[in-house]
Amino acid sequence: MEDNRVLTTALAQHLGQRVQVMGWLHRLRAMGGVNFLVLRDRAGIVQAVASHEAIAPLHGLLAESVLAINGIVVQEPQAPGGYELHDPHIEVITPVHEPTPFSLYKDRVRATLPVFLDHAVIGHRALERRAVLRLAAGVMAGFRATLAQRDFTEIQTPKLVASATESGANVFPVEYFGRTAYLAQSPQFYKQIMVGVFERVYEVGPVFRAEPHATTRHLNEYVSLDCEFGFIRDHFDVMAVLADVVRGILDYLKAHHAAELSLLNVTMPLLPAKIPHIFFPEAQQMLHDKFGVKNALGEPDLAPEHERILGEWAQKTYQSDFLFVTGYPMVKRPFYTHPNADDPRYSNSFDLLFRGLELVTGGQRLHKYEDYLAAAARFRYNVEAFKHYFEAFKFGMPPHGGFAIGMERFVTQLLGLDNLRQATLFPRDIHRLEP
Amino acid sequence: MEDNRVLTTALAQHLGQRVQVMGWLHRLRAMGGVNFLVLRDRAGIVQAVASHEAIAPLHGLLAESVLAINGIVVQEPQAPGGYELHDPHIEVITPVHEPTPFSLYKDRVRATLPVFLDHAVIGHRALERRAVLRLAAGVMAGFRATLAQRDFTEIQTPKLVASATESGANVFPVEYFGRTAYLAQSPQFYKQIMVGVFERVYEVGPVFRAEPHATTRHLNEYVSLDCEFGFIRDHFDVMAVLADVVRGILDYLKAHHAAELSLLNVTMPLLPAKIPHIFFPEAQQMLHDKFGVKNALGEPDLAPEHERILGEWAQKTYQSDFLFVTGYPMVKRPFYTHPNADDPRYSNSFDLLFRGLELVTGGQRLHKYEDYLAAAARFRYNVEAFKHYFEAFKFGMPPHGGFAIGMERFVTQLLGLDNLRQATLFPRDIHRLEP
Repeated sequence: MEDNRVLTTALAQHLGQRVQVMGWLHRLRAMGGVNFLVLRDRAGIVQAVASHEAIAPLHGLLAESVLAINGIVVQEPQAPGGYELHDPHIEVITPVHEPTPFSLYKDRVRATLPVFLDHAVIGHRALERRAVLRLAAGVMAGFRATLAQRDFTEIQTPKLVASATESGANVFPVEYFGRTAYLAQSPQFYKQIMVGVFERVYEVGPVFRAEPHATTRHLNEYVSLDCEFGFIRDHFDVMAVLADVVRGILDYLKAHHAAELSLLNVTMPLLPAKIPHIFFPEAQQMLHDKFGVKNALGEPDLAPEHERILGEWAQKTYQSDFLFVTGYPMVKRPFYTHPNADDPRYSNSFDLLFRGLELVTGGQRLHKYEDYLAAAARFRYNVEAFKHYFEAFKFGMPPHGGFAIGMERFVTQLLGLDNLRQATLFPRDIHRLEP
Repeated sequence: MEDNRVLTTALAQHLGQRVQVMGWLHRLRAMGGVNFLVLRDRAGIVQAVASHEAIAPLHGLLAESVLAINGIVVQEPQAPGGYELHDPHIEVITPVHEPTPFSLYKDRVRATLPVFLDHAVIGHRALERRAVLRLAAGVMAGFRATLAQRDFTEIQTPKLVASATESGANVFPVEYFGRTAYLAQSPQFYKQIMVGVFERVYEVGPVFRAEPHATTRHLNEYVSLDCEFGFIRDHFDVMAVLADVVRGILDYLKAHHAAELSLLNVTMPLLPAKIPHIFFPEAQQMLHDKFGVKNALGEPDLAPEHERILGEWAQKTYQSDFLFVTGYPMVKRPFYTHPNADDPRYSNSFDLLFRGLELVTGGQRLHKYEDYLAAAARFRYNVEAFKHYFEAFKFGMPPHGGFAIGMERFVTQLLGLDNLRQATLFPRDIHRLEP
């Protein structure tokens, strides 16, 4: 069917010729004697100007009918894309007889979020919505391209695991041939193990968090962009690679998704040559001294409101939409976190804030077998459950670290969306398991 | 740590210079006064020739200790890689005190499969093993590159679903906030839905099959390379894209993984300009007439033995390690399969055999809403469970089709391995959920 087909974005090359386009009836406007018909394909949209007779095949049909239109390409500055089809012959490939639950042709989808999500199956066809999802694809491609260039190897680790990855809580149990398996909360253990094989690894895949809350910033299944590598000095080496990755993703979007960025009016983030960083206790001190935040000091973590203030500060002070907060207290970090050599209350870990929201968590991990045994004892973990993970350390691991970027969260912050669900294909939360 | 580091495969550029390499102690051989020490990094291996005094830091340490070695690069045709390090200074980064469960330095790992799998965490460090996993990464990259070039968009669909994808059987139930969710058996429904958005989509991700058997050709979790696209004539358009994908993957491996292909002595498959195809009933007739197979005729599917015979036949007759079998009987195909317009007993579906094993299943799907309603009624499916999937068809879908390649199966057949588990990072079966 594709043989004689021309995409709507390639019409300039066929000016004056009769061509065939195929796609969905985006909109039909009958203006008395003359009718304007907009067709949408994977590339864009084109308007056809049709007589009453020409649209006869569309009698009784509604938007989203699948059509092939044969017409002559005419330049028309007023038309979307700058070209129009004249003297169209319309062939109906698949008719549609029911109205869509909300209009798909408008600049912005006008449906409440629950209604949109209930009908996301077709709602994603709106130009605005599919641009968001294409940018998500660009984020994944930019992530992979940046790391592949740096000699990282892709891995795909199991999502069915025998025990919880990070802690016993918030895991989904799976009935697995008469025993209980769990869905992996992250590829953390496996990506560390694979540093012993490839030194540098990355993974793009689903992770599962059974957190029983429904917020605008959390989902129970999301796509994690994971990275881990060896032979580092400390977490600053990890932050350097992460900065390269962020820059690599943004450059990829600019190079490959200019149309989507433009359609969505995206303001590209401020990203200076060096992303600024601030040590956790100094961030707290500043929140207290400079911003009059009452409850900042002494807490083991930053509240969302603190992150927001720090984000604004970095933007004003460093012209940066990104800010590293380094050295979070050990007490709030998982057991495999490497402590700061100078002050073991603090860790060699970091968060990367993007426009005042935590986008990435990362850091240096423990790499010595005896440190893992000690950490497991301190946390009173059952060492048997970790025996395979620990085996990697028994047999020699270099100093290493890594990070995980929430893919949908990156898109949400980049586009300034209110809710992570707007950047997620088919979101999963405590109330929603469909579509 | 990386600043002054040279990879073992880059020594030729440093001939006569003192350089630092880092990696794992692959092997240490003490030959009286002189000692040969092999170091492994992510790129390859290098031998260092050390005096008794030089290896003093290794006293009491075993293979897999992580080291930095400072030495002078000397050409030595006898040494692996053609270069050696002389006058080495050894620094121990992470010591190892226990012997590995099996040797990692030999050409082939000599452990039974169960023992290997129990210790795959370190077993994958063997050069042979990691080459297999790097080829797996190459298969994924080649798949993506081929489709991205053809205007396909990447999607990541949910793995937690409200009902079984293909049939009620063989799904893993998940405890999901007081109700039961299931693990997706395939992204089939979602990739079809997304044809309505992007026309052409692909996904690389895990799929879950709760089949309670343990064979050499099946696993309960594997990586599926999925593809789906619209505006096709029939399944032959799908086969053409699949042929491009297979060629694209093999070309990618040749271009980017020549070292791994060579290390594993891979015989690249015979792939003629056009992959041969045979219509299902004709394949059965030939099995009966030409190869004397007793139980071939009238069955609705091919047995593994039949596939093997057909594979050999295609190799001899067409110099092809690939063979399409087209038009499997409708009765054995899922409800969304499109029938053959001329003879509705047969379907517009196909399998691709690779060296006599089913590697890919694909075909044209139904695209009309009323056909889905009829199929659901015929199969006595609960339409409510499919309402989101069916909504995509209610609002206009073009003729479309697609396929799914089992990633580990591709690697298994390419390398001539006996067991899918040998091409899987950490396999999951009825008996195994670890590591």
